Amino acid sequence: MPAARQPIVVIAPDSFKGSLDAQAVCEAIARGLRRVWPDAGIRACPMADGGEGTLDAVLSRGGERRQREVTGAGGKSRVAAYGIVASREDVTAVIEAAEVVGITDPDGMSRPVTARATQGIGELIRALLDAGVRRFMIGLGGSSTNDGGAGMLAALGLKLVDAAGRDIAPTPEGLASLALVHAQGLDPRLAQSSITIMSDVNNPLCGERGATAIFGPQKGVGADDIGPIDDTLARFAALAEHATGARAADRPGAGAAGGLGFALQLVGGTFRSGADVVADLIGLDAALAGADWAFTGEGRTDLQTLLRKAPYVVAERARAAGVPITLLSGAVDAAALPELGRVFAGCFALPAAPMALAECIANADALIADRAEQIARVAARAWEQRREPGSRSPRRG
Amino acid sequence: MPAARQPIVVIAPDSFKGSLDAQAVCEAIARGLRRVWPDAGIRACPMADGGEGTLDAVLSRGGERRQREVTGAGGKSRVAAYGIVASREDVTAVIEAAEVVGITDPDGMSRPVTARATQGIGELIRALLDAGVRRFMIGLGGSSTNDGGAGMLAALGLKLVDAAGRDIAPTPEGLASLALVHAQGLDPRLAQSSITIMSDVNNPLCGERGATAIFGPQKGVGADDIGPIDDTLARFAALAEHATGARAADRPGAGAAGGLGFALQLVGGTFRSGADVVADLIGLDAALAGADWAFTGEGRTDLQTLLRKAPYVVAERARAAGVPITLLSGAVDAAALPELGRVFAGCFALPAAPMALAECIANADALIADRAEQIARVAARAWEQRREPGSRSPRRG
Repeated sequence: MPAARQPIVVIAPDSFKGSLDAQAVCEAIARGLRRVWPDAGIRACPMADGGEGTLDAVLSRGGERRQREVTGAGGKSRVAAYGIVASREDVTAVIEAAEVVGITDPDGMSRPVTARATQGIGELIRALLDAGVRRFMIGLGGSSTNDGGAGMLAALGLKLVDAAGRDIAPTPEGLASLALVHAQGLDPRLAQSSITIMSDVNNPLCGERGATAIFGPQKGVGADDIGPIDDTLARFAALAEHATGARAADRPGAGAAGGLGFALQLVGGTFRSGADVVADLIGLDAALAGADWAFTGEGRTDLQTLLRKAPYVVAERARAAGVPITLLSGAVDAAALPELGRVFAGCFALPAAPMALAECIANADALIADRAEQIARVAARAWEQRREPGSRSPRRG
Repeated sequence: MPAARQPIVVIAPDSFKGSLDAQAVCEAIARGLRRVWPDAGIRACPMADGGEGTLDAVLSRGGERRQREVTGAGGKSRVAAYGIVASREDVTAVIEAAEVVGITDPDGMSRPVTARATQGIGELIRALLDAGVRRFMIGLGGSSTNDGGAGMLAALGLKLVDAAGRDIAPTPEGLASLALVHAQGLDPRLAQSSITIMSDVNNPLCGERGATAIFGPQKGVGADDIGPIDDTLARFAALAEHATGARAADRPGAGAAGGLGFALQLVGGTFRSGADVVADLIGLDAALAGADWAFTGEGRTDLQTLLRKAPYVVAERARAAGVPITLLSGAVDAAALPELGRVFAGCFALPAAPMALAECIANADALIADRAEQIARVAARAWEQRREPGSRSPRRG
């Protein structure tokens, strides 16, 4: 194909979990496309859904990566990365909860879940408030805590005391002796702030579908402890709601990140699809404007993807921009294809032959490039039919 | 997509060996395409390469399936199918050697390879000569015999006698006592006939790369018998060449089908790519004329495919007709993609997720339809970009 006819292609995948991060997926797709269109205009827009990789995705298109020492879930200091994205109108801080209280922090994980808390997140927010930030985007994936967000609220000025009036630890263990909550000291700048919570968890704080019952076990809550801890969080939530005059425990998402979703809503935070937030922050719509084709993808695509996961959000914006978008994922659930067919101009998976998952993961980089190349060959040839003088056009009737 | 803009698509795959025959592959691809283009003009052209499935492929586009009782490899009568394709100019008989002396014939396989012979093929040819046929297309795949084609030649009038002048059996066992060959009785109508041999085997009749050494073991020739049988066939060939005045034992393909390639060349047969012969017989070029897209495929595609296997031959003809052609195979060897990329507008495999071979085979029908659908979505969307008023065209520069 002559160099004069090179398309502009937007590449906006999520990470392929357990295999490649979104930036690496972009690079692999770009490599495949360049075998067909050597001088294609590639617009790499690594995506994320508010979970792991969100900070990287946002910062790949601008903004500044910063670090701050905060208290980890286990009580030990740790350095947490966050992002600052400045636009003409305002400054936004992008926080991944997992950077502060993540399940990959060995110190936090060495302590029982009943001794872990989220105060580091409160410390980080407070420091950012001090720095003048009033706009927060907080991704909730991958936390190790189950404290109902008590740690964060305590760090932001909520006072938690026992029957004797002594400060208690904002951990599930400490909250067991909670008697009173005072909100007078809660940082007043929170009320002037916009807090966007990125999470796809809809669970309430407590009860059968609550944080402790559903997500507690994977964080180390024993079967016998679910009931008592759930009761403790319910009492904490009731007291905190009473003290602040706000309501949040029953809202969808209150159970996200061990109740951090409750605490953030209590101070005015609102939920939004993480992928939408990331798409806005990275300027995805601007990248799509005038593009000829787009690619998205993720580790595994099924019907859940349509619940505003990154590929779906990218597809929606591509459609609005009139740009065809093809899905290239590690695996595609065949049962979802009829629905996916309404959204994507083709859904493709990595294997080029019968292949085990481990082989797919080990060769993901090469497989992605190969598949992107083959998809591009179809599009290129279809476009060529239009361009070649004397070529037939698709039959009419 | 409006019904007024439905493309014409040629579907010309080989069978997916061990899974679906070519006709079933055509139907699965067509089903997938119709999900995108409900009223597509589908031209199904099941292909074959001269081996198993050749007769079905040829007859799918016309001609007549007939049957005749002939002698099987083991000496017992069996009914063999063959095809008759009549054009304005001539009548062509299409024969699959495996229909007469195939490895799936229990009687033939119950006898040792030294007792098997190809006389049934000679009987069939003789009957067709009697019926006025002078044009033969003979596919050599899947034979159980290793008689150097002596059985076929005997049935066509070649006289094989021992030192005492007695007729011998045209089997490896009988040929061991061969002393003289007389060609006077060889059917003279063979010299007026056109015999096309379809096979991708290039081996000579004898020697280290000969029929017995290379293909004998899989037909039951014991390791100790390779040398003696090879010697027997060499002596038979030398005597037969002397008697007929023709030469064939050292020609490429003489070792095909246990030496049937030798015997057929001895009576004037010439080798041709089976896929090319099938493409001609089914009128592939006419089907491609005016088409908008084409699909081909096979069970597994690798660099061997470029040696004039069916998908390659279909691609060559599609290119000549200016029709984009996409490959959809059970598996595609990644190492072959750079070469395949020059031939195909996209190469795709069946799995939509990490998947074992057995699962792929068991679900081939659904997987083929799904993959064809997804490929069509890419082409359809690329075409649409041309059609929609106000849509952008791919950037130039």
